[in-house]
Amino acid sequence: MAAKLKPNPSDHLLIFIVVFLIAIDSFVPSTAAFSSSKWSPRFLGKFSHPNKPHPQLQLQQQSQFQYDTRYFDQRLDHFSFSKLPRFRQRYLISTEHWVGPERLGPIFVYCGNEGDIAWFAANTGFVWEIAPQFGAMVLFPEHRYYGESMPFGSGEEAYKNASTLSYLTAEQALADFAVLITELKRNFSAEGCPVVLFGGSYGGMLASWMRLKYPHIAIGALASSAPILQFEDIVPVETFYDLTSNGFKRESISCFNTIKQSWDVIISEGQKNDGLLQLTKTFGFCRTLNNTDDLINWLDSAYSYLAMVNYPYPSEFLMPLPGHPIREVCRKIDSMAGDNILEKIFEGISVYYNYTGKVDCFELDDDPHGMDGWNWQACTEMVMPMSSSQDSSMFPTFDFDLSSYKEECLREFNVEPRPRWITTEFGGHDIKATLQKFGSNIIFSNGLLDPWSGGSVLQNISESIVALVTKEGAHHIDLRASTDEDPEWLVEQRTTEIKLIKSWINDYYRQKRAVFEI
Amino acid sequence: MAAKLKPNPSDHLLIFIVVFLIAIDSFVPSTAAFSSSKWSPRFLGKFSHPNKPHPQLQLQQQSQFQYDTRYFDQRLDHFSFSKLPRFRQRYLISTEHWVGPERLGPIFVYCGNEGDIAWFAANTGFVWEIAPQFGAMVLFPEHRYYGESMPFGSGEEAYKNASTLSYLTAEQALADFAVLITELKRNFSAEGCPVVLFGGSYGGMLASWMRLKYPHIAIGALASSAPILQFEDIVPVETFYDLTSNGFKRESISCFNTIKQSWDVIISEGQKNDGLLQLTKTFGFCRTLNNTDDLINWLDSAYSYLAMVNYPYPSEFLMPLPGHPIREVCRKIDSMAGDNILEKIFEGISVYYNYTGKVDCFELDDDPHGMDGWNWQACTEMVMPMSSSQDSSMFPTFDFDLSSYKEECLREFNVEPRPRWITTEFGGHDIKATLQKFGSNIIFSNGLLDPWSGGSVLQNISESIVALVTKEGAHHIDLRASTDEDPEWLVEQRTTEIKLIKSWINDYYRQKRAVFEI
Repeated sequence: MAAKLKPNPSDHLLIFIVVFLIAIDSFVPSTAAFSSSKWSPRFLGKFSHPNKPHPQLQLQQQSQFQYDTRYFDQRLDHFSFSKLPRFRQRYLISTEHWVGPERLGPIFVYCGNEGDIAWFAANTGFVWEIAPQFGAMVLFPEHRYYGESMPFGSGEEAYKNASTLSYLTAEQALADFAVLITELKRNFSAEGCPVVLFGGSYGGMLASWMRLKYPHIAIGALASSAPILQFEDIVPVETFYDLTSNGFKRESISCFNTIKQSWDVIISEGQKNDGLLQLTKTFGFCRTLNNTDDLINWLDSAYSYLAMVNYPYPSEFLMPLPGHPIREVCRKIDSMAGDNILEKIFEGISVYYNYTGKVDCFELDDDPHGMDGWNWQACTEMVMPMSSSQDSSMFPTFDFDLSSYKEECLREFNVEPRPRWITTEFGGHDIKATLQKFGSNIIFSNGLLDPWSGGSVLQNISESIVALVTKEGAHHIDLRASTDEDPEWLVEQRTTEIKLIKSWINDYYRQKRAVFEI
Repeated sequence: MAAKLKPNPSDHLLIFIVVFLIAIDSFVPSTAAFSSSKWSPRFLGKFSHPNKPHPQLQLQQQSQFQYDTRYFDQRLDHFSFSKLPRFRQRYLISTEHWVGPERLGPIFVYCGNEGDIAWFAANTGFVWEIAPQFGAMVLFPEHRYYGESMPFGSGEEAYKNASTLSYLTAEQALADFAVLITELKRNFSAEGCPVVLFGGSYGGMLASWMRLKYPHIAIGALASSAPILQFEDIVPVETFYDLTSNGFKRESISCFNTIKQSWDVIISEGQKNDGLLQLTKTFGFCRTLNNTDDLINWLDSAYSYLAMVNYPYPSEFLMPLPGHPIREVCRKIDSMAGDNILEKIFEGISVYYNYTGKVDCFELDDDPHGMDGWNWQACTEMVMPMSSSQDSSMFPTFDFDLSSYKEECLREFNVEPRPRWITTEFGGHDIKATLQKFGSNIIFSNGLLDPWSGGSVLQNISESIVALVTKEGAHHIDLRASTDEDPEWLVEQRTTEIKLIKSWINDYYRQKRAVFEI
């Protein structure tokens, strides 16, 4: 095994946002742009640019859910009194179904994560769908340094350097939420109204952390696909790639093996005369490859995404995909005659990058904007060590190395990661013992097909800190809007979630001796 | 009632530290220096100067408890990645009685508050006394910006202006503790050892907040005299002065009335020709009074202190005092013949300022060092609104006014207070409901004679969040070293505390299935 991935601090974490963000039904590019840079994939970077929200997406969102867009003046550093410019935090709000403060109407808050909050609102149909039966207000506050919530007046200024970026941290974001919720409740005279948090992916991490750190602000949290244990050595570093690989292996051993063998083939092919040109042709890129790493990352990203969006029904995220997309990829790989591994791989990956068949050639967009907040977060607090093992992973072997990781972050952002900070601030080691005696009202929902599930809470911790695990589920599918094709287990999962949330609220009402019952 | 106290942001809070700090047995000044400035009392400011610890005190401490003094390199802002100079946090450590990591020996951590940590160590005998029976390590980390734990290289630099002071916040201090404890545990291979927190006064607030915010770091907290509810409108703004006044009223109505009447007499006396000179003589000041406010503050401070240290046995804090000192003050006031109110007041207050009879004249030290961290904290986060009511208080009538408070903080520190931040960050409103479902293992201990008890938790919240309330107790007496004169209720209180702490630790061991039992 000579193939080697470069140590990419945020490769893997970046992945799990994109899935959430990009349900762009109408967006089918004639050339599939995808990143192969070391910060890949960078689709988020392109489309989450605060000054250029995707026009088609905007349109779609506005037609789907009704809300007002408002802004709230926030401190840049909640935990010091440094004289810093304040910034405008955007939030989306709907009081359409809220029964109001007198009846202690609940307030549903989605913890905005690393992207434009309008995208999250558009892709969290679950919250919108259940709000009416709860008589709930719906609130989507945006995460600082994303979307329109830019400090220093603009995204360009906010992302200028390590100094301007330095307030982009999870704790500051949580404090933003705490201050915003507290102030809004005061303004609505809704101090007595129960707040329930929602979040998917990093947003799910924020929701669970918010429940832990601010139990007085929210009575419960639904944290979907929230890998709060993906830090330090809490879970084995091979987890993510092993799970992704298992998703392929369970469909077909030969598919798994073909992919596993492909890396060496790519590298040796690339070393030949005209090898890169040949690879360019085989994979149908619009421009000639500069190196094999770009191709390897392009494939690597696709496999990881496929594992996350390995939903049981057809979906249209970044790419329109069939149901059980990995099954389809492997069917293509396995069914192709001959022993040309690269042609097999191309057939398979085309399911992901060109399911509609409309792509003429693939673009390896290699122009980083330096605008990607998650890369900064991965280089500061969100250090999630990941290795690809020689045996159980189908990916190129790679050992996570903290020193190289740090070096790259210093080079890229002039910042030093703090790999132990998250567990110091939020815990993680021995989480069961901590939460058993100290927490309540959290749902950790996970689909086992999602490679992020390995870093999540998969066991019930107490009576009211429960894990909802679905065998066939992928990345936070439960938060999406319901469809006619939802399998039974998904319908059941959502029913359970609604039941639990109701029980939290009714508990709260009983405590408050409120007369209003759902 | 024409007498009026100036709105002094930190008058009242400053008070409650001093008591803790100043058990200076051998220090009996021939002139009793005391502040009458608007930041009064400032005794802490004088003797907590980082570069000039009191030599006699140092001596006393060293002889009393054995520990090593060490330093830990800390970030200045834990919640941002701003490039800031790091600072050395001092901590005192004793492993003398620790049974070590193999036997999961507990770690007792005192949450250092607003002063030199050596003083707190010297005045928290309880922790030292019980450590051996628990086989516990003892740790006293110093609070940033106090003692030797000065950012920017020196106290002078640290206290230079609002910019250098801006990282003096409770959240940063808690994060210091969290990082230090985590790192020390790692260094001792003691990750599995249970941590128990202790704290008195502001230190008690920190201990309880630490337990709430960092449940994964410590398994329980003894928070003594911790007025975590003394914010916004959670308790009536008159509480502190009413309780202080009650301490006098319960000894003698006429004493209460004499004090209540004295303010107008002082003011009208001061308006006469040579009135200030006459007042200076009556009260035996070394130098002529500049105004009556100084005198009023001098008296006001003494009454509040007396209420806090109204212990049932003789004690030697700032001033050597008899047991039940308020009873003694009132006895003097009531027993003096005639109707000269000011002479009565002088007789009474001499119990506090001159119990030994060795003071020739009283010094009104009016030279602020601008070095007092608590004033900064009171002007930023620790906004505790206090009024003195017309009827139930014996103090000059005063209505807390947030605008004036803010103006004064802007003038003094060029900083704007955030009066709602503490409850947003730590909760406070509806604390019972929050903690019932979300916390465990906290003792809130309070003596009802302590005027700070009114802002503390006085009722059991759950099975393991308990209030230990003593009718005859004053400010965190339970944390002090035991004496032969301890009354039965104090002995019992400490026994209960030990029992509860043991139960937390044994619970933890059971969870850990550890073999070592206390």
